[in-house]
Amino acid sequence: MRLDHVGVATQDAVSLAEQYVSLFDADLVHEEAFQGMNVCFLDLGNAYLELLEPTGEETTIGRYLAENGPGMHHVAFVTDDIEDALANARAEGVSLVDEEPRAGAWGHTVAFLHPRDTGGVLVEYVEH
Amino acid sequence: MRLDHVGVATQDAVSLAEQYVSLFDADLVHEEAFQGMNVCFLDLGNAYLELLEPTGEETTIGRYLAENGPGMHHVAFVTDDIEDALANARAEGVSLVDEEPRAGAWGHTVAFLHPRDTGGVLVEYVEH
Repeated sequence: MRLDHVGVATQDAVSLAEQYVSLFDADLVHEEAFQGMNVCFLDLGNAYLELLEPTGEETTIGRYLAENGPGMHHVAFVTDDIEDALANARAEGVSLVDEEPRAGAWGHTVAFLHPRDTGGVLVEYVEH
Repeated sequence: MRLDHVGVATQDAVSLAEQYVSLFDADLVHEEAFQGMNVCFLDLGNAYLELLEPTGEETTIGRYLAENGPGMHHVAFVTDDIEDALANARAEGVSLVDEEPRAGAWGHTVAFLHPRDTGGVLVEYVEH
């Protein structure tokens, strides 16, 4: 498993992407409207940043921003067997947000673990 | 520049490290007492996780945990010229937590940017 990306919640993904391109020498490699979000992926060479902008207040990220403000939202780890990774997390006693893998942004397959069982970190498993 | 690590604040770095080793197929590669913290680094192959446990309540991480609870604390980007990276951030109008690079954990040189100017993300530049 490797670190795939850090997800950042923001009210303006394009503006934040422009700043991060300069601050982190990153490349904007993908933009997508996906499930109530406008998503930008920035490539850092060894990993990505995923910028998540809500399309409205009554969306997952819209509610997250209203409660927490902008900033780090989740950390994603890439695996070549997401079913196996989920089974291992379940065996470790970790609550799953997604009991089964589902479609994620950029055509990937994803599943989230509950932060209450992972040290307060919202964890995503992703299979490309 | 590449993504170096994600910093996670916790009340028990060793226990969280044990869990993350299993959940993320990571290796615990470094432990250190540093400036009011017990620090663990986990190697994911392409990047690290840095687990930050305070040695007391009246420390930077102790106060952070009292206010925010455990979870993601910062994201670090590695550069081979931290002076240049800081100068660029300053030119972009970003407030600096550290006006000059300083000693960080694991013998690295580090400087933090203020999250109010970077989309709510506490950013660290690190030079190995």
